[in-house]
Amino acid sequence: MSLFTVIDVKSEKRTQFIDITASVRECLAGSGVSEGVAVIFVPHTTAGITINENADPSVPGDIIAGLARLVPESGDYQHAEGNSDAHIKASLMGSSVTVIIKEGQLLLGTWQGIFFCEFDGPRKRKAWLNITAA
Amino acid sequence: MSLFTVIDVKSEKRTQFIDITASVRECLAGSGVSEGVAVIFVPHTTAGITINENADPSVPGDIIAGLARLVPESGDYQHAEGNSDAHIKASLMGSSVTVIIKEGQLLLGTWQGIFFCEFDGPRKRKAWLNITAA
Amino acid sequence: MSLFTVIDVKSEKRTQFIDITASVRECLAGSGVSEGVAVIFVPHTTAGITINENADPSVPGDIIAGLARLVPESGDYQHAEGNSDAHIKASLMGSSVTVIIKEGQLLLGTWQGIFFCEFDGPRKRKAWLNITAA
Repeated sequence: MSLFTVIDVKSEKRTQFIDITASVRECLAGSGVSEGVAVIFVPHTTAGITINENADPSVPGDIIAGLARLVPESGDYQHAEGNSDAHIKASLMGSSVTVIIKEGQLLLGTWQGIFFCEFDGPRKRKAWLNITAA
Repeated sequence: MSLFTVIDVKSEKRTQFIDITASVRECLAGSGVSEGVAVIFVPHTTAGITINENADPSVPGDIIAGLARLVPESGDYQHAEGNSDAHIKASLMGSSVTVIIKEGQLLLGTWQGIFFCEFDGPRKRKAWLNITAA
Repeated sequence: MSLFTVIDVKSEKRTQFIDITASVRECLAGSGVSEGVAVIFVPHTTAGITINENADPSVPGDIIAGLARLVPESGDYQHAEGNSDAHIKASLMGSSVTVIIKEGQLLLGTWQGIFFCEFDGPRKRKAWLNITAA
């Protein structure tokens, strides 16, 4: 059994990490699935997804700043749309995360949250959630 | 139900992103699976895999150049084979991608393609595709 | 069918890659699962997981050194705990790896091993292994 849900995401800055953990948990609760795996996939090429600390907002802030130091917005890029840094950062973070489901719960560590990583906003975006029951 | 397929990849440069989306789609069509998940895994340590834009070839080109700036081919490396940069880039991109299958289709965003990331070619390589029906 | 196991990891340095391939193989052998997928998930925000060469120990050493050059321990970070570099490196490596299971074997390439990536040790850590039979 497999359940597919679209999670709407609205970014308000060019670069922004948006915590979507609560949305994923809500979909899982509604699914009735108790054991399995959740895949959260980002169908964009200038946005990614990562799991990191969502307790102190300075953590996603430091990740954003660290990525900006590594991959500058302006550079010797060939792609004409001016967002090559966003494409590179999307691949560094990855296009999906996989989370184990156990006893109906999303199995995350104490400090972990799931962040949609906007690198070329502000935009209306989507994350795709697929819950597979074991 | 689970279906395993080997996708052959032939790189022609030291560093090259090779679009394998069509091969994955073809295997999926042949599998008859309508709902589930596809895992594409790269069994090499100097190659990785990523999902990014496959419409404008300057996008993978900019990712390759961006990674080369971050991880130079020559450096203060200990590994004697002269390809430490390729190992580092492989871990930055990752060894697998996971894509949702829905109504018999590989669920990718409009601009997304699956790239085998060669970092130590030219070589004959493989990607392993595992399709699991939900 | 799905089987969940906790793998205990003990790091002895601030930054250390610990090969957990044998532990994963042992759990798989005990599970009796012959076809499916293994997800290994790290429930920490200053540790990650990656697949790379485990034959020559200079390879994980070069990856650690390469990441240290990219993300210095001291920098203009906002997070007050002094481990922002560890959070950034965790997201660069990722929080999980997915490995295909075939004929009862963990399907890794000849040179591949699974490394728990400690970035803020020494600590007692955990990796979560979820084996799903197809």
